[in-house]
Amino acid sequence: MSVPSGQKATAPRRRPSRPGGLPGRQDWSSWPRYQAAAAGFRGYWYPVTYSSQVTGRPRQITLLGEKIVLLRDSGTVYALRDRCPHRGVPLSEGSQQFPGTISCPYHGWTFDLRSGELKAAITDGPASPICGKVTQPTYPTAERLGMVWVFVGDGEDAPPIDDQLPEELVDNAAIVGSRIQPRPGNWRFACENGYDEGHAKYLHRTALWRLFKPMPVWNETRVVQRGRWIYRVQDEQHWEADFPGLGKWSNQAWFKLKPPKAVANIGNTGGHREVNPVIAAQDYPGFASVSMPGVLRIVYPTFIHYEFYVPVDQDSHLYVGALVEFTRGIRTLPFYAKYLGFVRWLFHGQFSGQDRWMVEVTDAPPERLYRPDDSLLRWRKLAEDTCEARAERLRGDGIHPPGPPPAD
Amino acid sequence: MSVPSGQKATAPRRRPSRPGGLPGRQDWSSWPRYQAAAAGFRGYWYPVTYSSQVTGRPRQITLLGEKIVLLRDSGTVYALRDRCPHRGVPLSEGSQQFPGTISCPYHGWTFDLRSGELKAAITDGPASPICGKVTQPTYPTAERLGMVWVFVGDGEDAPPIDDQLPEELVDNAAIVGSRIQPRPGNWRFACENGYDEGHAKYLHRTALWRLFKPMPVWNETRVVQRGRWIYRVQDEQHWEADFPGLGKWSNQAWFKLKPPKAVANIGNTGGHREVNPVIAAQDYPGFASVSMPGVLRIVYPTFIHYEFYVPVDQDSHLYVGALVEFTRGIRTLPFYAKYLGFVRWLFHGQFSGQDRWMVEVTDAPPERLYRPDDSLLRWRKLAEDTCEARAERLRGDGIHPPGPPPAD
Amino acid sequence: MSVPSGQKATAPRRRPSRPGGLPGRQDWSSWPRYQAAAAGFRGYWYPVTYSSQVTGRPRQITLLGEKIVLLRDSGTVYALRDRCPHRGVPLSEGSQQFPGTISCPYHGWTFDLRSGELKAAITDGPASPICGKVTQPTYPTAERLGMVWVFVGDGEDAPPIDDQLPEELVDNAAIVGSRIQPRPGNWRFACENGYDEGHAKYLHRTALWRLFKPMPVWNETRVVQRGRWIYRVQDEQHWEADFPGLGKWSNQAWFKLKPPKAVANIGNTGGHREVNPVIAAQDYPGFASVSMPGVLRIVYPTFIHYEFYVPVDQDSHLYVGALVEFTRGIRTLPFYAKYLGFVRWLFHGQFSGQDRWMVEVTDAPPERLYRPDDSLLRWRKLAEDTCEARAERLRGDGIHPPGPPPAD
Repeated sequence: MSVPSGQKATAPRRRPSRPGGLPGRQDWSSWPRYQAAAAGFRGYWYPVTYSSQVTGRPRQITLLGEKIVLLRDSGTVYALRDRCPHRGVPLSEGSQQFPGTISCPYHGWTFDLRSGELKAAITDGPASPICGKVTQPTYPTAERLGMVWVFVGDGEDAPPIDDQLPEELVDNAAIVGSRIQPRPGNWRFACENGYDEGHAKYLHRTALWRLFKPMPVWNETRVVQRGRWIYRVQDEQHWEADFPGLGKWSNQAWFKLKPPKAVANIGNTGGHREVNPVIAAQDYPGFASVSMPGVLRIVYPTFIHYEFYVPVDQDSHLYVGALVEFTRGIRTLPFYAKYLGFVRWLFHGQFSGQDRWMVEVTDAPPERLYRPDDSLLRWRKLAEDTCEARAERLRGDGIHPPGPPPAD
Repeated sequence: MSVPSGQKATAPRRRPSRPGGLPGRQDWSSWPRYQAAAAGFRGYWYPVTYSSQVTGRPRQITLLGEKIVLLRDSGTVYALRDRCPHRGVPLSEGSQQFPGTISCPYHGWTFDLRSGELKAAITDGPASPICGKVTQPTYPTAERLGMVWVFVGDGEDAPPIDDQLPEELVDNAAIVGSRIQPRPGNWRFACENGYDEGHAKYLHRTALWRLFKPMPVWNETRVVQRGRWIYRVQDEQHWEADFPGLGKWSNQAWFKLKPPKAVANIGNTGGHREVNPVIAAQDYPGFASVSMPGVLRIVYPTFIHYEFYVPVDQDSHLYVGALVEFTRGIRTLPFYAKYLGFVRWLFHGQFSGQDRWMVEVTDAPPERLYRPDDSLLRWRKLAEDTCEARAERLRGDGIHPPGPPPAD
Repeated sequence: MSVPSGQKATAPRRRPSRPGGLPGRQDWSSWPRYQAAAAGFRGYWYPVTYSSQVTGRPRQITLLGEKIVLLRDSGTVYALRDRCPHRGVPLSEGSQQFPGTISCPYHGWTFDLRSGELKAAITDGPASPICGKVTQPTYPTAERLGMVWVFVGDGEDAPPIDDQLPEELVDNAAIVGSRIQPRPGNWRFACENGYDEGHAKYLHRTALWRLFKPMPVWNETRVVQRGRWIYRVQDEQHWEADFPGLGKWSNQAWFKLKPPKAVANIGNTGGHREVNPVIAAQDYPGFASVSMPGVLRIVYPTFIHYEFYVPVDQDSHLYVGALVEFTRGIRTLPFYAKYLGFVRWLFHGQFSGQDRWMVEVTDAPPERLYRPDDSLLRWRKLAEDTCEARAERLRGDGIHPPGPPPAD
């Protein structure tokens, strides 16, 4: 239907003034690299699927907007750009004709999995002059926590994945219960939601995961940095409040536990059990922390919950939730019972589903921030500074990654 | 699939000439304000839903391209812009935490329903510095004919809704049978279809509503203005015609009533019953009339049928059909029996469904108008002039609504 | 969801070099008219549907991006532009009110099927001044091979359809088994796939149609032109190959026939039967040939298979496959038994479905061609030259068809 272009809906004449609080922002130009990272930050490892999902049958994933084919050969996972340079057909629709290679389904162009080199063009015979003249881009891969990780960079050498994993996961025995879910919405909304100080106490008040434990109404919080992580430190927790002209409000109920006396910085409602020795040894300043390229860590007395927000493209991301206990041997059995019978459905399911709901409907900028959004601003600054530092480092190596669009 | 941009399909060489009749138009630039009003005219009240559909549970509607949340509190309907200024989440996904307010589901920002003022940000405690510094735009509301009406303007004071309702509906006892239906297609195609002199006699010849009554083949019609309405006046009705080189054509059939002798201007096929006194008192010059912002009135001897074409966005509208009888007391029972057993299905259903079909497939401009389209041109002129007069009035009040795009 | 515009995914730093083989192409600017013909070449007849599908009930098709209404009247098929000039409603939603005409459903505008002239505007009576002042564009039509063909040009006189049909189909008795299927993907990918020398031997190796006959691994091929056709001539066929560093590869299997000794140029794996006299008389230089505007001819000893790639719009095409035997009388019975019981499912079905799969996922340019793509380059050159020659011819007749976009 063709309709003449129309009168745009316009704002009413009396615009609300904006004299106080954090400023209303029409865009994210204060953080140009963050603003430009709609499809994710390059130069990082990302978890993309369970290890068990990558077999000898090629599989396509999308990561930071790039189509990538994954294939396992002799136990090792390989990743190549999933577009045959000949006619643009996805290699993931093809198959393996020779060990160590993948062949395009259309004309049998055959690439070395390790180097990406074109080893044969089957339909042009053994002496095809194109062999050795075409190389398909490849991606470094690794396997950790039962998942396949892929590094997306700008041509630099990939750093060891252990340099990027949360430190406590590198050397300690741990068991993992995880959930991977494609979700609508930009990865930054997911990450901001995860670290957001304000939302949990209100949005999640109806989560079954919180059925017997109240949440505070509001907190007084500081954000502190230690190494590559920033932490939320609770200075004060307020369990009920009386709003002028409106009335009292709290999360408490007769069937819920009473709020703890002390301010909790391990778990968000107070440590009520002996703290696991590995966790205690980390001496975390606060229970919620975040690091690049979008990793959330929520520390409880006996386990840690991680969320990895993996950019698929500008409009969707992969939610990777992992619950980790630092234990081994016979102790792993009750963990799996607890995870499969309880945590997976209530925490990684209904509770996290509330976050999914908000990430999908968030629509910013423009935005109008308030006091608890300090956590969000600190995360954006961390991302901006870290990305700027990497760009500096790459330029030193003679690599010029694309910068953010120039400020107007 | 990426395909190089291609050769555009082009018109054949021998273009049909356009020497006569009303001119063929490539666009609607003769009516710049009408052309610009793809998403509707601002400065009017619009019916948006049944009163019974607005309760204490927030509900989103779209009107003139704007998302609006409706909520009923202590019997009164309130309407606010449905986008929390904090992070862009729809307030209609939220709930009521305190009387007289609505709270965003994400962080509990709580707005006064009447003023739009931010009264509390629950997760920032009672002394949140942002309170009183943010005001959400609100919309005037009213309830008439069993429906909720919302005023969309440019910041001016809303005129009383009774100034805009069809005059006969303001002071007379009336009973209403109505149907509200979201429909595809621009609201202007719907309105032009409604007032169009030409289509009814041909398009609707197969409607069951006309099963026993023939329609004329063609009419001689004048359009006259009285106040804010323009009326179609029938000077002549032709019940059959002999088309040169083609043959005879008529809407008559052995099972249909014979056409009336006199030209009918109450009802489109002749008044055959005593005219209701309220209707008679109005002394309408013609049976079909239209007024801003897109209200059709079809007068029959014993009832009036109204159609309100409510702009949802540029591509869809709300059809609001209302059949009104000016009667009361015991007489209302046969009305409801007739409406629910008959009118709703044949008139507001199958007959009106033929209009829906045409509005969906109309694709103009370009267009090539003919003699009966004089009714359509007069409607466009009425809309253009009325909109221009309002813009003049607003400028006098210091309000500068957006104008149409400048002519090239 | 509004997301700030983001950092575009970029190519890795170490780009593969391109020193040899056919050049990698970022676009098709070497063939500007071919590049511009995303919606097809104008000036040709195209098959659009089975003859039996065009009846007295109007039917819409899309051809070269143009909406066209087809209608059969007194045995003849007519084609008109499917948009009423009045208000843009498709005539195909209308019906026939008088012999030799079609009427728009909205206001009864009635067009002559042969000339396109507006004969009546029913709702404006017999003396409507617009009659004779409006002419709807029409398209030449024909019926061949049990199908309706439509000519799309730029205002020139349509050449006789027999000048465009494959020559052997014009004067010889023939029986046809055909399949018409709407398919995704640009028509050029379909045509290039059809004539592509390289793909059949690899892509179709798993087709049931080839169950008992092996295909070569690779061929040595020349392309030769004769009249308006170009032919692939096989100089050498290689039935197995040993790829350096990878190993041996062949299409042979214990249950398949042994490869023929001689190089086959009738049928792609060797003539094993007596050649039909009509086919023998043509003395084709090679078994696969192509001509404008996208007609593939594959010659077997006893039948010929044709594929017509009919542009619907830029993103989809009509696959028209036809299997023809030059026989008559009692011999037609085993043909239909063979076609319906076997060929239709294996050849026009599963085998051709593999082509459909590739055409859908092809994504070029950019592309990186290799030695067997010489057949593809020759087809592009044929199309380019033929299109240029037609433009020259039209200019001589004072017709100026749109050219390709100017080179940058």
